[in-house]
Amino acid sequence: MHVSVRGRKQSVRTVSFDRQRNAVLLVEQRLLPHRFEIFASLDYRSTARAITDMIVRGAGAIGATAAYGLAQGCLAFRGGSLPKFRKHVARVFATLQSARPTAIDPVNAMMAVRQHMAQGSTVVAQQSLAFEAAELFAEEDVRHCRAIGQHGARLLRNGMNVLTHCNAGWLAFVDIGSATAPLYAAHAAGKKFHVYCDETRPRCQGASLTAWELAQQGVSHQVIADNAAGLLFAQGKIDLVIVGSDRTLGRTGEVANKIGTFTKAILAHYHRVPFYVAIPLSTIDWNLPSGREIPIEERAPSEVLGAWGVTARQKREYVRIANPTSDALNPGFDVTPPDLIAGIITPAGIFKPSELWKRRKLLGHQA
Amino acid sequence: MHVSVRGRKQSVRTVSFDRQRNAVLLVEQRLLPHRFEIFASLDYRSTARAITDMIVRGAGAIGATAAYGLAQGCLAFRGGSLPKFRKHVARVFATLQSARPTAIDPVNAMMAVRQHMAQGSTVVAQQSLAFEAAELFAEEDVRHCRAIGQHGARLLRNGMNVLTHCNAGWLAFVDIGSATAPLYAAHAAGKKFHVYCDETRPRCQGASLTAWELAQQGVSHQVIADNAAGLLFAQGKIDLVIVGSDRTLGRTGEVANKIGTFTKAILAHYHRVPFYVAIPLSTIDWNLPSGREIPIEERAPSEVLGAWGVTARQKREYVRIANPTSDALNPGFDVTPPDLIAGIITPAGIFKPSELWKRRKLLGHQA
Repeated sequence: MHVSVRGRKQSVRTVSFDRQRNAVLLVEQRLLPHRFEIFASLDYRSTARAITDMIVRGAGAIGATAAYGLAQGCLAFRGGSLPKFRKHVARVFATLQSARPTAIDPVNAMMAVRQHMAQGSTVVAQQSLAFEAAELFAEEDVRHCRAIGQHGARLLRNGMNVLTHCNAGWLAFVDIGSATAPLYAAHAAGKKFHVYCDETRPRCQGASLTAWELAQQGVSHQVIADNAAGLLFAQGKIDLVIVGSDRTLGRTGEVANKIGTFTKAILAHYHRVPFYVAIPLSTIDWNLPSGREIPIEERAPSEVLGAWGVTARQKREYVRIANPTSDALNPGFDVTPPDLIAGIITPAGIFKPSELWKRRKLLGHQA
Repeated sequence: MHVSVRGRKQSVRTVSFDRQRNAVLLVEQRLLPHRFEIFASLDYRSTARAITDMIVRGAGAIGATAAYGLAQGCLAFRGGSLPKFRKHVARVFATLQSARPTAIDPVNAMMAVRQHMAQGSTVVAQQSLAFEAAELFAEEDVRHCRAIGQHGARLLRNGMNVLTHCNAGWLAFVDIGSATAPLYAAHAAGKKFHVYCDETRPRCQGASLTAWELAQQGVSHQVIADNAAGLLFAQGKIDLVIVGSDRTLGRTGEVANKIGTFTKAILAHYHRVPFYVAIPLSTIDWNLPSGREIPIEERAPSEVLGAWGVTARQKREYVRIANPTSDALNPGFDVTPPDLIAGIITPAGIFKPSELWKRRKLLGHQA
């Protein structure tokens, strides 16, 4: 997507690779929305640390980062001994895997790279194939997001007001994003609409990341408190809701996403406003039989008891908002039942939640 | 209510009067929840400023503050000339009225004091009556809150989990509060229950004031992000909702309250959990024919774009959370329709919203 840096527009991906310098290039997300910087990771260990330290976050983005990191590690190997090379690759793989141990995307991405590499019979050939495979992985992420955008853009009409929650934007992928993809595609097609970004407490990814993305792309938007959507629905000021998903159950159509998503789905249902979920195929869980079995991560109370921001002197600070002797409960996700969802926007088209299982072949289910 | 100050429990009202020093005593609410202090206002001008500067807030509390402020001004008058005294009283009245020009409670409270004073035929008699009337006004506020507590406490059973929104606690009244009154009454009666306090963005009165109040009274509670209630409802972890109200329409049963209240009512309705509104009689608007006519105040975008809190060095700071080039929309209130409300808890009993008009005589409607 385009980013304005010191008044100049430039095209930037969240994750990319500089073959010349053997460097993984990442948008430094910890500085956003207050500062835009590209972090150049010059070796695979530093790339693993970038994942651990949240320079990069979001399922698609960390998958591509790990794929590039594996290629980077392969390309750094000197010598022609295949057994030594294989040992080296295993070390790189393990380092990148342990960077965010609970995430599945880095592992899947690196397995795809390793499989592709296996076709080469020399170190040089495998190095070249590793780079090619990482590029293919990143390109597929972009292509899928673009396809989500093309399908989803049909839902947007001139004059509409759209509600979003959290950030499933291009910062969470290699480019374009999932929930934001229809917005960018419709905007590029010249449609005029307005977006309300839920601030998405407690971590405020809507107010910080989604609002920053939309501002960069010139999409009309306003931040709202998570409390405000109800009034806007009642006033007829919301015509469409699009959110992302952390995990969508292929068997039931239930959608796990950032805490507060379920509430927005109920509000939309009450006011007869269509509620859509945009997802890449990698988000579909074909195994879990029920949303009740999705583990709900409980996060640190400090996220709810205060907030991170920037002071008037541009210093990043955490401030305590809540009563100092009170504790907080901080569940990170909730689950939205299929009957509240008008459709799931996938790279392969828009489907009712109940259709996912029937269309599982088209949606990449490995039988 | 009881407050622990340096380990010692003491009984404190939000607003009280020290006849000896002719001082209005106020809990300094701008320092809460981080510091507890009593502000002693030594003349009526300073009392008016305390209202303007938000040392005291909440309909009942500012009503009592204005009543005491008027008495304070009367008592400060030296001399026996009734015409001069009347002129002085008019000046005091106008000063206190202009402290928060849109609020109706200070005016109503001072009119009650002035009416009572009129029975006296000398300056001294009127001064004494002014003090008496202010005390009566404050006592009635406390008595009404206590009655709300007695009626509402019947709704609470052992083991329940209760959701609250914003702060309609004792800090908003002379004592006890409206939405919190049933909690304090049930707690005093030995019932065991747990309260979830919505943090109530953007101003976070739930996380700061309600949580502080409940902690002081030893009521089991946790702060949650406004986004989290949906999940808790779905998990069966909320059995009862009690909120306050800024304005309740006597003709329709519609309830205007802090932004986000309507969303909680819809969540409760979806999950078949009873949703109650606790109100003093002064909150009932007998004139407005429809909730659509309630003006929705739009507040400063900065409230949504950042937050006030205390840094690790105990310094009060505002931090910007949102993207610096994005704007916010910040409506302050929403309106909940009567069909989502199980009952209105008043000092005169609990009524269905549709019953208010029928019971208007009992509820203080001046025909």
